[in-house]
Amino acid sequence: MLHDLRLFPADHATRHIAARLYQVVRDSPILSPHGHTDPAWFAENKPFPNPAALFIQPDHYIFRMLYSQGIPLESLGVPTANGPGTADPREVWRTFARNYFLFRGTPTRLWLDHSLSTLFGLHDRLDQDNARDYYDIIDRALRTPEFLPRALFNRFRIEVLATTDSPLDTLEHHQAIRKSGWHGRVLPTFRPDSVIDAEFAGFRQNIDRLGEIANEDTSTWKGYLHALRNRRAFFQANGATATDHGHLTALTADLTPNEASALYERIYTGSFSPADVTLFQAQMLTEMAGMSVDDGLTMQLHPGSIRNHNPAIFKAFGRDKGADIPAPTEFVRALRPLLSKYGNHPRLTFILFTLDETTYSRELAPLAGHYPALRLGPPWWFHDSPEGMMRFREQATETAGFYNTVGFNDDTRAFLSIPARHDVSRRVDSAFLARLVAEHRLDESEAFELIEDLTVNLVRKAYKL
Amino acid sequence: MLHDLRLFPADHATRHIAARLYQVVRDSPILSPHGHTDPAWFAENKPFPNPAALFIQPDHYIFRMLYSQGIPLESLGVPTANGPGTADPREVWRTFARNYFLFRGTPTRLWLDHSLSTLFGLHDRLDQDNARDYYDIIDRALRTPEFLPRALFNRFRIEVLATTDSPLDTLEHHQAIRKSGWHGRVLPTFRPDSVIDAEFAGFRQNIDRLGEIANEDTSTWKGYLHALRNRRAFFQANGATATDHGHLTALTADLTPNEASALYERIYTGSFSPADVTLFQAQMLTEMAGMSVDDGLTMQLHPGSIRNHNPAIFKAFGRDKGADIPAPTEFVRALRPLLSKYGNHPRLTFILFTLDETTYSRELAPLAGHYPALRLGPPWWFHDSPEGMMRFREQATETAGFYNTVGFNDDTRAFLSIPARHDVSRRVDSAFLARLVAEHRLDESEAFELIEDLTVNLVRKAYKL
Amino acid sequence: MLHDLRLFPADHATRHIAARLYQVVRDSPILSPHGHTDPAWFAENKPFPNPAALFIQPDHYIFRMLYSQGIPLESLGVPTANGPGTADPREVWRTFARNYFLFRGTPTRLWLDHSLSTLFGLHDRLDQDNARDYYDIIDRALRTPEFLPRALFNRFRIEVLATTDSPLDTLEHHQAIRKSGWHGRVLPTFRPDSVIDAEFAGFRQNIDRLGEIANEDTSTWKGYLHALRNRRAFFQANGATATDHGHLTALTADLTPNEASALYERIYTGSFSPADVTLFQAQMLTEMAGMSVDDGLTMQLHPGSIRNHNPAIFKAFGRDKGADIPAPTEFVRALRPLLSKYGNHPRLTFILFTLDETTYSRELAPLAGHYPALRLGPPWWFHDSPEGMMRFREQATETAGFYNTVGFNDDTRAFLSIPARHDVSRRVDSAFLARLVAEHRLDESEAFELIEDLTVNLVRKAYKL
Repeated sequence: MLHDLRLFPADHATRHIAARLYQVVRDSPILSPHGHTDPAWFAENKPFPNPAALFIQPDHYIFRMLYSQGIPLESLGVPTANGPGTADPREVWRTFARNYFLFRGTPTRLWLDHSLSTLFGLHDRLDQDNARDYYDIIDRALRTPEFLPRALFNRFRIEVLATTDSPLDTLEHHQAIRKSGWHGRVLPTFRPDSVIDAEFAGFRQNIDRLGEIANEDTSTWKGYLHALRNRRAFFQANGATATDHGHLTALTADLTPNEASALYERIYTGSFSPADVTLFQAQMLTEMAGMSVDDGLTMQLHPGSIRNHNPAIFKAFGRDKGADIPAPTEFVRALRPLLSKYGNHPRLTFILFTLDETTYSRELAPLAGHYPALRLGPPWWFHDSPEGMMRFREQATETAGFYNTVGFNDDTRAFLSIPARHDVSRRVDSAFLARLVAEHRLDESEAFELIEDLTVNLVRKAYKL
Repeated sequence: MLHDLRLFPADHATRHIAARLYQVVRDSPILSPHGHTDPAWFAENKPFPNPAALFIQPDHYIFRMLYSQGIPLESLGVPTANGPGTADPREVWRTFARNYFLFRGTPTRLWLDHSLSTLFGLHDRLDQDNARDYYDIIDRALRTPEFLPRALFNRFRIEVLATTDSPLDTLEHHQAIRKSGWHGRVLPTFRPDSVIDAEFAGFRQNIDRLGEIANEDTSTWKGYLHALRNRRAFFQANGATATDHGHLTALTADLTPNEASALYERIYTGSFSPADVTLFQAQMLTEMAGMSVDDGLTMQLHPGSIRNHNPAIFKAFGRDKGADIPAPTEFVRALRPLLSKYGNHPRLTFILFTLDETTYSRELAPLAGHYPALRLGPPWWFHDSPEGMMRFREQATETAGFYNTVGFNDDTRAFLSIPARHDVSRRVDSAFLARLVAEHRLDESEAFELIEDLTVNLVRKAYKL
Repeated sequence: MLHDLRLFPADHATRHIAARLYQVVRDSPILSPHGHTDPAWFAENKPFPNPAALFIQPDHYIFRMLYSQGIPLESLGVPTANGPGTADPREVWRTFARNYFLFRGTPTRLWLDHSLSTLFGLHDRLDQDNARDYYDIIDRALRTPEFLPRALFNRFRIEVLATTDSPLDTLEHHQAIRKSGWHGRVLPTFRPDSVIDAEFAGFRQNIDRLGEIANEDTSTWKGYLHALRNRRAFFQANGATATDHGHLTALTADLTPNEASALYERIYTGSFSPADVTLFQAQMLTEMAGMSVDDGLTMQLHPGSIRNHNPAIFKAFGRDKGADIPAPTEFVRALRPLLSKYGNHPRLTFILFTLDETTYSRELAPLAGHYPALRLGPPWWFHDSPEGMMRFREQATETAGFYNTVGFNDDTRAFLSIPARHDVSRRVDSAFLARLVAEHRLDESEAFELIEDLTVNLVRKAYKL
């Protein structure tokens, strides 16, 4: 099922170059500087419950596709707003297997085939006939020591795995991991949306809680900023090397201290307009960039997702249920206030992601090809796929070069898909470089250097690992 | 002139796979669920008048290209606003032949070569030297029984051909076809723009006429909605399985009954603002979706064309003269009201088209990859071309999969181009699938299933044929 | 280092076709109808100063990339707002060589390798080890007669080279070239931004100066228009065949004479709003189109660049320092006023450029595939690259055809890169045509005609050379 030459171009000469490039990084360690795995897995090292809970219920790529074809989320055991799903995991798995053909041509298919084959030795394509056997085999394996989270972490050759965490988080799991004596590096990432987006559920309580744990008076602008600096320091002390910001747009602002303070008061007291909410987020990106200049945390921006587009699904099942849809995203005017202030600063590393591929060649590559602080994140979410990755390299490289990019992010909750995702990225980068070599646009010796830079060195540098 | 392997990738291995996939559907019946042929042709079964009237004067792809290079529409015999064109058809054909080089690299060229070769046995490229002979040969053929509309319909192996019709249409031609005993399936499609767009020429008379033929009082919101339901039922009784909506944008609305009723009053009485016109169209898309939930008609939306961009051409020649230009189109926010109400409904099939290719990966695939009601229509109009089709598959498949798409539409007035257009689509799909197979992203057995699904099965399902 | 088959597809059959097509135009003369070389070079025919001053300091492609990786512009000897840079040119060259790997995958790399190899016989890749030798070799060569500007012009087989000039320019260098008896054709281009953009530095003085040299009263709308007509005639008398317009957007307007006159008064007296500035530029595009109808100058529009995005760089170094970033650009509604007035006129040739690639298939190809006056300029600036050129052909050809395009522009200040840039364009066009031939979408004989049309004939026609 898994062909050695998969994802390489069919042309014989190019394929051969790609295969040799890939060989260099096939077994390189995994650096995963941005993702959404649960640190509790590694702190507690308990077995994963069952195949459905492992593969289907946490993976919105999977259940959104099944849902789009009329399969109710309830029948897939997806957790609801009121608690865990109740569907029989064997039945869920059977439904998935019966509908596995829906994933033809999608990256989900590549990831799953890779996991089933390399981890469980299941080399035939999943279908309704082998569904029951596959379930049993996986289920049995999950109860063995080889499939405990830490064992998999080691088996996957993960060198660093970053999680994404609220500033209100105690980071107890991260601390437990360190204290445990296990050597796996699981690092937190400071993601402050819940205390920056005034429309976030429980925003005011979050701000108050932020004040408590930081021992600052967050009813004032100064206290609020102090509290954030304080929490960033706490994250850093616990291993964090980066922050992450999920905003609807890339808007930034550069208010005077008085304007910012007055805005914060409206935000804090709840007497804000929708425009205030936007402006506050915009101002806070600039504030965060300033803090990064001071403390050296790499800054990531993930803008442009319209969250919870489907109100019925949101009501019944809550967030992150495959109903987040990209919007056109503008970067050039939006980022100007921040970049005017900090874009030339040698201590800032600011990594931009996008869901709007039109910005690769028009906005992002020109920006990153100029501002010293800017770097381009890898293709994100819907674009974390062979065609998506190839478009990114084709559209960004000629203006931004390779050295204003930062390697791959798996950005996933689906722990077992991590090796598969990194493998796809390494293969696609090899294929892209191979074409440049085959077309005599790049020397082969340079391509060998580049494939290592893209896989390992640029990640280490951008994320300070 | 027509090479057997045309449109397949040059790489030997991939080409071989593509050719084998294509072989499976080469002779499959043509399902044409959306187009603009004239039902009178099949009701009356009269000979087509002459080569110019058949190939050039109804085909805006052809005359807009000639016009763009300075050839007056008058000289091509294009019908004017005041009546039919007067140019000598032989002269028109000669001009076309002399300028045939302008179509290099365009789909028009592929379609025309295909028609000339397969229908008339004209295998050399059209040019000024063979123009006169070709005219004579075609002209002679058109007067033979083999070239009557019904004979061609059968020869083309058309299983279903849908036309596009006004709700005010009596469908007399469709009825005549049925009564004639001929077995060709020519189905109407309900396209209500003329009674929904308040700026449509003769809008108020159209509404009044709608009331008369539906026997409803269309001066009220309720009566208007009843009349539309009534006409949809009439269309359905005459074979329709779908509606179609041509709007400037994809905006939808979900007003309260009182708001909608008040809006309709302003629209009906002519005391509306430009914003009212837009809002009414937006509201009517949602109403139409509701009616589709009830009566099961598949719903199509074709948004984003700025019609009649060139006022001089519009004044002299009227609509559909190659001067319609696409605009950027936003779907995610625009469709939210409709999708919030009906997007999860199992009885709705809502097919989206676009002229803005940037929306494939950013908006349309993510929407269709989530909402059960949504499907993606094939590349439309300017994008109904080899490169355009390939971009659609490359950009939509990884997120929406294949099974949220609906096969091919020829969407044409140019009856003789129908086999050529379907052939191009089958070849490009074969080429795309062949690449996935060659790159080991898809098993060959799956590709064989898929090429049939894309050509036949998904069309039948989406359009309920 | 320079492979004969570079930039051709790897597939053997396609590559072979591409190579044969390229052979036809490999040695064709260079027509450069739009660029930014300095006419003084050819008037004075003095040696170029040194390698850094020739290759690095005038080339924003190069120094923006170095800057993006943290290398200060000061250290590269880039001229500042207050005068020339002071860095040691040997040190600048060493920094460049040490960082030459940053240009992997960029067109800059292709251009530079081509220049070093073909002009200086330097066939190894530039690096820190050979940097000093290379500097010496180039520096020595520059002092020989073979490397004087006119000698290079002849050696490059340049048939025409257009510069870009202010309407206030005396064109003394162009006149000196003519008077010198040297036969190189160096033509001016009328670029009136400095007297049309009310926010241009020194705008009011420019307008007054315009009046002086044209001997018209530019305090009135009529006088201002007369002055512009007068200067256009002067440019034409000195060989100009085209105008060029660099605007933030593609907006056009068609005001009544009274409205236009009142607007001009506000602009002239400095009592204008930001909206006036925009409207005046919009109106002036339409006025310029009207003048082109009269005098036959081809009109070019280069919209969509947000200039001087980085205020710190602008303050220290001034314009054109790699900090211009593209913005989304709308053409369809924006151009309607102009096109409604002059788009059907047989005497107007209006060439559109874009930095927003999304407009190729959505807006520009449909517009150029309809309006007789419109033509599409080649990929511009960030998109003047192998992938960028290929995307242009793939996305524009199917709707606009080849004959609504105008061949290549090098658009450069970097004189030594001109042959390399034209070579890349010829190779990429050959590769695109070869694919069409290999896929049996175009006959080989047609491709041979097309490669000459794209390289030479369409340029001559569009720019009236």
